[in-house]
Amino acid sequence: MFDVVIVGSGPAGLGAAIYAKRAMLDAVVIEKAGYSGGQIINTDDVDNYLGLSGISGYDMAMSFREHADKLDVLFKDVEVTNIAEETGGYRLSTSGGDDILTKTVILATGANHSKLNVTGEDKYTGKGVSYCATCDGAFYRGKEVAVIGGGDVALEDALYLSKIASKVYLVHRRDELRGAKSLQDKVFAADNIEFVKDTVVEAINGEIKVTDIDVLNVKSKEACKIKVDGVFIAVGMKPNTEFVNGFVDMDEKGYIKALEDGITSRAGIFVAGDARTKNLRQVITAVADGANCVASVEKYLNLL
Amino acid sequence: MFDVVIVGSGPAGLGAAIYAKRAMLDAVVIEKAGYSGGQIINTDDVDNYLGLSGISGYDMAMSFREHADKLDVLFKDVEVTNIAEETGGYRLSTSGGDDILTKTVILATGANHSKLNVTGEDKYTGKGVSYCATCDGAFYRGKEVAVIGGGDVALEDALYLSKIASKVYLVHRRDELRGAKSLQDKVFAADNIEFVKDTVVEAINGEIKVTDIDVLNVKSKEACKIKVDGVFIAVGMKPNTEFVNGFVDMDEKGYIKALEDGITSRAGIFVAGDARTKNLRQVITAVADGANCVASVEKYLNLL
Repeated sequence: MFDVVIVGSGPAGLGAAIYAKRAMLDAVVIEKAGYSGGQIINTDDVDNYLGLSGISGYDMAMSFREHADKLDVLFKDVEVTNIAEETGGYRLSTSGGDDILTKTVILATGANHSKLNVTGEDKYTGKGVSYCATCDGAFYRGKEVAVIGGGDVALEDALYLSKIASKVYLVHRRDELRGAKSLQDKVFAADNIEFVKDTVVEAINGEIKVTDIDVLNVKSKEACKIKVDGVFIAVGMKPNTEFVNGFVDMDEKGYIKALEDGITSRAGIFVAGDARTKNLRQVITAVADGANCVASVEKYLNLL
Repeated sequence: MFDVVIVGSGPAGLGAAIYAKRAMLDAVVIEKAGYSGGQIINTDDVDNYLGLSGISGYDMAMSFREHADKLDVLFKDVEVTNIAEETGGYRLSTSGGDDILTKTVILATGANHSKLNVTGEDKYTGKGVSYCATCDGAFYRGKEVAVIGGGDVALEDALYLSKIASKVYLVHRRDELRGAKSLQDKVFAADNIEFVKDTVVEAINGEIKVTDIDVLNVKSKEACKIKVDGVFIAVGMKPNTEFVNGFVDMDEKGYIKALEDGITSRAGIFVAGDARTKNLRQVITAVADGANCVASVEKYLNLL
């Protein structure tokens, strides 16, 4: 029986892993993807993880994994399909067929950005297509960008980018924005944000990088191209928490409820990173969550 | 008037600085010490900041500062002596004489080592009494020293000093150490570390320099002297928050009350890192605090 099973090998999972090793816990990291790093693997450049300036998401993932490997972190490449209570802890069912027994679990399964599902989206991800304005916005200084979406995040992204880019097209499929009125006021007051309403993106085009998008006005049926260097897709996030639905308390979007200590509604089950309810989903806050969770695991194990 | 003044240039302050720059905020970091890094400057090896494995505290501080310099973070080498409300924000008085005006403040002032508060402690500070084994340990080659405390830092100090001094007494007031199990194992395996349990220091004695300490076993009530040349005090930390005492709410130890968003009891004043109430005071959680604070600052400025 493990002291702790860490489900997920993104920044939160690896952050937890190195703290678990340091605490001499008998730990294993479950890696569904077959590679470490989570969402950052697909991020072009990351320049906001203090101490690793101007590094690609891929290289950052590699340096995180190397750190874990140096400390002899144990990895298992399977998918967890179910968690159930078991005497003295929990039983994890896996895609590999073998069950894993553990006293505690750290859920570090992350979240995925919802996709537009249009031509060019996958091809240009990391080459002009981004799902995170605060991560990638700085690379579009003086350039033209489009933000796709109409909710709070899309509006925040548009405002954030308006201070960096020369022009921001806010493309939304309806004639009204869905985000907070206070954000809408600012969007409409910004000189360089153009609201492109009733419009859907049909394709993202480019050569080496994004050059323009094909859009269609759903009311007038008029189609046109918008020349942009960057496309920021903000049509929602989805936490990877379906397999624990009903097992721990979640909010209406599926984020597992927890404060920074990672303690969930179920004793011995902790959550770190993007899968939890939190203010700022970034690499640095995910890694910190991992450390916090291990501190919570240690306290919990001392009570067992 | 600045958008944000960041007071302190340790991991929390520098973490905030890079996020503030990326958010295009008009920001300045106030650095009292004249160098960046805060407490890590005096840390021997750090191996739990994901991505920077097996690095010295000094090198980590340098890589943090280089990252900030690459992003053209503005630094000012003065000490903030007071903060007062001002139309549209706050006025910071400084040791340099010039006041600084700002819309918001991030307090990232960190914490310092607590004192034992025993006779001789102040008198012999720098003459045998030290709060930093990695800073002063080298002066005790072949000599006998005492480390006072039972947490991670005390254990790390004892291990560090055991490689330099001929003998290390680890004096702790309880019968069990509080530090990580992995560190305890190493302490108990070291030939020249003697664990002096259930024991408090009553006085530090000397002539020009420290010669011995008076200790009392709190269970047997037995008092004795231990001959040592150096006393390394590792009994916890005190937040550097005196200058905002009464200005923002604090707990009984002087830590500024805040959750992970860094929001304090006073609008526009935020706190990041060791100076705030939190579960786990580590480099990684301090840097994450800095990022969280900038997100809170941005939300706050949008409301102004």
